[in-house]
Amino acid sequence: MTTAEFVHVTYLAHGKPGTDWLKKANGIAVGLTVGSWTDLPAARKGAMQKHLGHVADVKELGTTANGLEKALLTIAYPTINFTPDIPALLTSVFGKLSMDGMIRLVDIELPPQFASRFPGPKFGIEGLRETLNAYDRPLLMSIFKSVIGYDTETLAEHFYQQALGGVDLVKDDEIFFDETYAPFEKRIAACRAAAERAQQETGKFTLYAANLTGPVTEIFEKARRAVDAGASALLLNVLTFGYDVLQRLAEDPRINVPIMAHPALAGALYPSEQYGVAANVLLGQLMRIAGADIGLYPSAYGSVALERGETLKIAQALTEPRGDLKRAIPVPSAGIHPGLVPYLYRDLGNDQIINAGGGVHGHPGGSAAGGRAFVAAIDAVVGGKTLSEAAETSQELKTALELWGNPSEK
Amino acid sequence: MTTAEFVHVTYLAHGKPGTDWLKKANGIAVGLTVGSWTDLPAARKGAMQKHLGHVADVKELGTTANGLEKALLTIAYPTINFTPDIPALLTSVFGKLSMDGMIRLVDIELPPQFASRFPGPKFGIEGLRETLNAYDRPLLMSIFKSVIGYDTETLAEHFYQQALGGVDLVKDDEIFFDETYAPFEKRIAACRAAAERAQQETGKFTLYAANLTGPVTEIFEKARRAVDAGASALLLNVLTFGYDVLQRLAEDPRINVPIMAHPALAGALYPSEQYGVAANVLLGQLMRIAGADIGLYPSAYGSVALERGETLKIAQALTEPRGDLKRAIPVPSAGIHPGLVPYLYRDLGNDQIINAGGGVHGHPGGSAAGGRAFVAAIDAVVGGKTLSEAAETSQELKTALELWGNPSEK
Repeated sequence: MTTAEFVHVTYLAHGKPGTDWLKKANGIAVGLTVGSWTDLPAARKGAMQKHLGHVADVKELGTTANGLEKALLTIAYPTINFTPDIPALLTSVFGKLSMDGMIRLVDIELPPQFASRFPGPKFGIEGLRETLNAYDRPLLMSIFKSVIGYDTETLAEHFYQQALGGVDLVKDDEIFFDETYAPFEKRIAACRAAAERAQQETGKFTLYAANLTGPVTEIFEKARRAVDAGASALLLNVLTFGYDVLQRLAEDPRINVPIMAHPALAGALYPSEQYGVAANVLLGQLMRIAGADIGLYPSAYGSVALERGETLKIAQALTEPRGDLKRAIPVPSAGIHPGLVPYLYRDLGNDQIINAGGGVHGHPGGSAAGGRAFVAAIDAVVGGKTLSEAAETSQELKTALELWGNPSEK
Repeated sequence: MTTAEFVHVTYLAHGKPGTDWLKKANGIAVGLTVGSWTDLPAARKGAMQKHLGHVADVKELGTTANGLEKALLTIAYPTINFTPDIPALLTSVFGKLSMDGMIRLVDIELPPQFASRFPGPKFGIEGLRETLNAYDRPLLMSIFKSVIGYDTETLAEHFYQQALGGVDLVKDDEIFFDETYAPFEKRIAACRAAAERAQQETGKFTLYAANLTGPVTEIFEKARRAVDAGASALLLNVLTFGYDVLQRLAEDPRINVPIMAHPALAGALYPSEQYGVAANVLLGQLMRIAGADIGLYPSAYGSVALERGETLKIAQALTEPRGDLKRAIPVPSAGIHPGLVPYLYRDLGNDQIINAGGGVHGHPGGSAAGGRAFVAAIDAVVGGKTLSEAAETSQELKTALELWGNPSEK
């Protein structure tokens, strides 16, 4: 038998002045587990005790500018009430509750035994580095500039140009759904061939994260066929397909490639102060336990900005030590150009993927030159040089800094 | 060949004073379809034209109390960019965009041909009424008071008590995940037997919406086994499992029972004014096209209140004429007692399910009496009588009104 374990869930709640927060927290702990405790017959309480949630902590945070009180409520839920999957967790701890006033889910801590029933990343940072034979530096990814309406051959050529620039990974655009002109397996095979062609020139193999789409009834078989067709990575829109799709892909030993989790739709959940789910839970904690090897999220520096503290909490959730759970690699994204690399490196060091779309393709010298500008910027920060110094020996970086700026040396 | 069709998506956007809303809207229309238009070679534009989104409408709404401007932006997206499923739709029209500033998804209109590729409800209101042989009145549902920790026999007895009260449907608690004590098919068979036993007394068959859970890799087979075991309805936590699970259940002809869509987690998405997805999209439009026969959402009157106008928009989305798409039945839920039936009836008339948990089980005469009090209240409103009048011939209703109040006659 296992000993009693609890999932600790923390909520940020807002309420009227004078709210009895302990009572509110107790109501959640009982209401979301056994439903009602005082109404239970005494004879029944013994059997139900092990299912009962309890209040682990209540921290009052004072009054907001608009006269509301706020508090952090931490509830301990017995793990025996759940199956080890995200739909069970989220439905139980924030299903009905999400609709009950000003309440926001800000942290989920799984205890060790329960956590061990989730797959976590199959590769993790170490596995990904082995696959790429790339150590002691941030990895580099570029994104297909545009994919809708292009055929397989054109996309493979785009891939080749990106690979020539020295990027470690290329990801599909996450809105690539209609595969009429570029069927999934054919595209994967063509990009694999392009990767091998580029490798002959650069000595470096570039992974292709192909966007996995289609009915959930077919998606697992499709993923296995992708692997057979030479897939080197898979991209999944986790929030629109459901975390459980990620989890079952991660659990499938036949799907032996890294899985990249896209944050699409996350902005519908995380930005409010009073409602929703914090970004570190959505894009950090849950993505990692469900099995993402690579976790994308908005960076603090680019065009889709998230507050820096929030981005660091996501990265922490993806990488902090958690028993046997492998570490997922953080990918702060959107609007990244070479001049921002020093900020990203200061925040996360080597264990991240520098990811760019326009910052690669918008380079006046083309996508390959755009990739080389990033490689030079990464080499610079890892080697303790400034970008200006590195630009003396990299015309591509020099051009990029002139175009997009070099804010860290301003 | 089909003619060009567009999905029209409307966003509520907030921005700084002086925002160029048409430019913003154009950026969305191009950015979320072909990526970039001005950068495209002229030779390429011909082929890409059919993939290009365009601005259908911009409506400036003036300035908010905190000095922001707001506007409604409607974008037309070519349907050929999508596959007919909700992950494709949501990822494309609100994936990245959800993370890009103060923007909220408030409406999605599918054109007829594209809509016809979604299943919609298999039964709809008419099919559900035929199944229940219940016409010309609101339907009545009760919810298992508590399920965690109970065994099959106890739950079947609870079901029997509820069925005796004359309810049309009984739903599982949506947090019922651990099936150790009450395995899914065994529970379904036992509740079916209880329904048949009650029918011998009441002449009325009561449906049981069993909570469908488990890995998405197994959930479809599990649903089919449920049908074989005598399931009369299924409950799904659509937002945590993903809309596509609902769609594929609805498309499967072997799953020939009504599907009830639970709104769990919706409150993480709809309450903010500036972010997220409006409740009528989440719980109305998308649930219906994906195949929900029965759509739950917070009522305007109970314990988990949603603003009345919002609830009416959800009900409208579930029921308004839409080509061949069947109508789903609205279920305004949470904190409903018999005294609230006149309000619900005024809002929606016959085509709704009156749904109660505590308002049934908390009746001093027990769950069966609680059900009968609701039946009397429904008979009253349909027959044009006041609840007070009806209470003269229904002791159960009289007791309920004394306990919970009769606000519509105050």
